[in-house]
Amino acid sequence: MYIGIDLGGTGIKAGLVDDNYKILHTASVPTGAQRHYSEIIKDMAMLAIRVTEEADFDIKKDVKSVGIGSPGTCDSENGILVYSNNINFENVPMREEMNKYIDLPIYIGNDANVAALGEFMVLDDKNVNHMVAITLGTGIGGGVIINKKIYDGFNGAAAEIGHFQVQMTDGEACTCGRNGCWEAYGSVTALIRETKRAIEAHPDCDMAKDVTAHDGHVSGKTAFVWAKKGDPVAQEVVDNYIHAVAEGIVSVINIFQPEVLVIGGAISKEGDYLLNPIKKHVEQFRYSRSIPQTEIRIAKLGNDAGIIGAALLGADVK
Amino acid sequence: MYIGIDLGGTGIKAGLVDDNYKILHTASVPTGAQRHYSEIIKDMAMLAIRVTEEADFDIKKDVKSVGIGSPGTCDSENGILVYSNNINFENVPMREEMNKYIDLPIYIGNDANVAALGEFMVLDDKNVNHMVAITLGTGIGGGVIINKKIYDGFNGAAAEIGHFQVQMTDGEACTCGRNGCWEAYGSVTALIRETKRAIEAHPDCDMAKDVTAHDGHVSGKTAFVWAKKGDPVAQEVVDNYIHAVAEGIVSVINIFQPEVLVIGGAISKEGDYLLNPIKKHVEQFRYSRSIPQTEIRIAKLGNDAGIIGAALLGADVK
Repeated sequence: MYIGIDLGGTGIKAGLVDDNYKILHTASVPTGAQRHYSEIIKDMAMLAIRVTEEADFDIKKDVKSVGIGSPGTCDSENGILVYSNNINFENVPMREEMNKYIDLPIYIGNDANVAALGEFMVLDDKNVNHMVAITLGTGIGGGVIINKKIYDGFNGAAAEIGHFQVQMTDGEACTCGRNGCWEAYGSVTALIRETKRAIEAHPDCDMAKDVTAHDGHVSGKTAFVWAKKGDPVAQEVVDNYIHAVAEGIVSVINIFQPEVLVIGGAISKEGDYLLNPIKKHVEQFRYSRSIPQTEIRIAKLGNDAGIIGAALLGADVK
Repeated sequence: MYIGIDLGGTGIKAGLVDDNYKILHTASVPTGAQRHYSEIIKDMAMLAIRVTEEADFDIKKDVKSVGIGSPGTCDSENGILVYSNNINFENVPMREEMNKYIDLPIYIGNDANVAALGEFMVLDDKNVNHMVAITLGTGIGGGVIINKKIYDGFNGAAAEIGHFQVQMTDGEACTCGRNGCWEAYGSVTALIRETKRAIEAHPDCDMAKDVTAHDGHVSGKTAFVWAKKGDPVAQEVVDNYIHAVAEGIVSVINIFQPEVLVIGGAISKEGDYLLNPIKKHVEQFRYSRSIPQTEIRIAKLGNDAGIIGAALLGADVK
C-alpha cells in the first residue's frame, strides 16, 4: 500500500491507500502555513506514521512509498518544492526533510497534477494514454496525463489550463495578473460574481428575493438551484457559465485530443445537468470531425483525488 | 539519408535530406488534388525516386526511409491519412500505396507537426525535451514535441493551437466554425483584414494613400512596412497584431511550459521586430515566476521545415 499526503494552505490530509486505489484510513492536521518548512514537513511525516498506525499497519513493512501533492511548482525528479505562493515555500527539499523521519521513497507533485493522476488511475478503460482533468473550483485547476504520466513541462509548471486567455479584449480580471483567463469565467469564483451581478441587476427575480430575504449569501450553487426552480435570471447565469466552461473545453480538446477529459471540482456535482450541455456544445464546435472524439466525463474521486493521486505517484503506471 | 515529401493542396515537394539534416536536392510537381488518391500517391513515389536519381544516388541503397508531411489528421502508426478537407482524402492507406513503388519504410505525419519536428531536430541544444512550434501563416499552425516526439493526441489531431478561443464574446469569425479563435487574430489573414480595416477607416494616412495609389493590394507586410516608415495608423495595426500573437503565446506557455517555443511562418521574417515585443509581453504576463522560463525563438528552417521534418520522421530521435 501507499501513503498519499494532500498539502493545502489550511490543512494537511494524509491517507493510506491500498493496491486497488482505495483509501483505507485518513487523518488530518492544520498546516500552520506561517511556520518554517521543517516544522510543517515534520508534521506531515508524523501524520503519515499516525495514519498507518491507526489502521493497524506498520509503515516500514506495509507501505511502499509516500507521495505528496503540493500547491505550486515541483521538481518531482529531485523531490523539491520549487515555489508556492500558497504556503510561501521556495526551493524546499521535501524529500530530504521527509526522509529524516520516514525511510521510504518520497515523491512529490503539484496538487492539480496529482489529482489528475488519481482520476486517471481509476479509469475503467486501461487503454487510455492521454487524459486531461479540469477542476472547477475557486480557480480552474488542470492536470494533463500524456502517455500515462503526469505532464508538467520542463520546469514543473505546465498544465495551468485555467490560465489561457479566453477574452483578450475587455476580459474580467484574473488573479494571475492578466485579464480574461478561462479561470475568470469558468471558476466557482466567476460563477458567484455573475450570480451577484444578476441579483443586483434584477432585484425582483425569485433568486434575488430569496437571497436578500436570507443573509445575502451567494454560493456556486445559488444560480443552479434557482435555474432548476425556473427562474429565468438564474437560468441565464447558468447558461452563460456553462457556455464559458464548454468553450474552454473545446479549446483544450483542440490542443490535446485526449481519449478522456474529466471534469472535477465543486461544480462537477451538478452531474448531467452540467455535462450534457457541455457535450452538445463540444460536438458542435470541436475542430476535428470524422475522427474519434474525446469522451467527457465527471470526475469519480471528488475530494479524494488528491490523496489517491499523491499515493499513486509511487505506483508504477504501466 | 532520407526522403521528405511535403504534400500540399497545390504542389508536392520532395527533398533528399542527409544525416546532418541538410537538403541535398529538391523537386516538385503539381498535386492535382481533384484526382484519385492512387494517382497522387504514385506521383509522390515517382518524385521521390526522381529526386534521388537527380542527385546521383540510389534509392534502394542510399535512402533509409521516406516521410510524408500531409495536411489533415494522420494515423501515423498505421500510415493512414485519416482525413483531410484540404485534398479531400479520407482513410487513405498512404504507406501501402507508397510501398507499391518504393520498398522502404514509409512514415506519415501532419504537416504542421512534421515542420515542428524539423525545427526541433535543428535546435542547437540537444537537451531540450519539449518544444512548441507555431506558424503564423494563412492560419496559425501548431506542432508540439513532448519528450522529443511529436505529440498528436490519441486520434492524430492534437496541437491545433490556432484553434483555442481568445475572444469568447464578439470574436472574429474563424474558418473552423467558431468565433474568436487565436487564428482569427494572429494569422496573416487576420493581419491583412485589420490592415484593410485601418486603411478604410483612415484613408488619409500614408499607408492608405500608397496602397490606393498602387493596385490596392494589401499583404501581411503592408502594415509592418509602413509602421517602420513611421505611419501611426500602420503602427497601431502592428501593435495590435503583435499583442494578439503575444497573448496567445503566454497561454500556450502556461499550458505546455516547453524549453523552447519557435515562431515560424511568413510573419516570422520580421525577426527581432516581432520577437522583442513578444518576449517583453510574455515576461510581464506569464503565470509562473521564480522558475526557469521558456525561450522564444524565430524558426530556423523556414519553408524547408516541412521537407526536413518529414524526412526525419524516419530518423531515430534520441
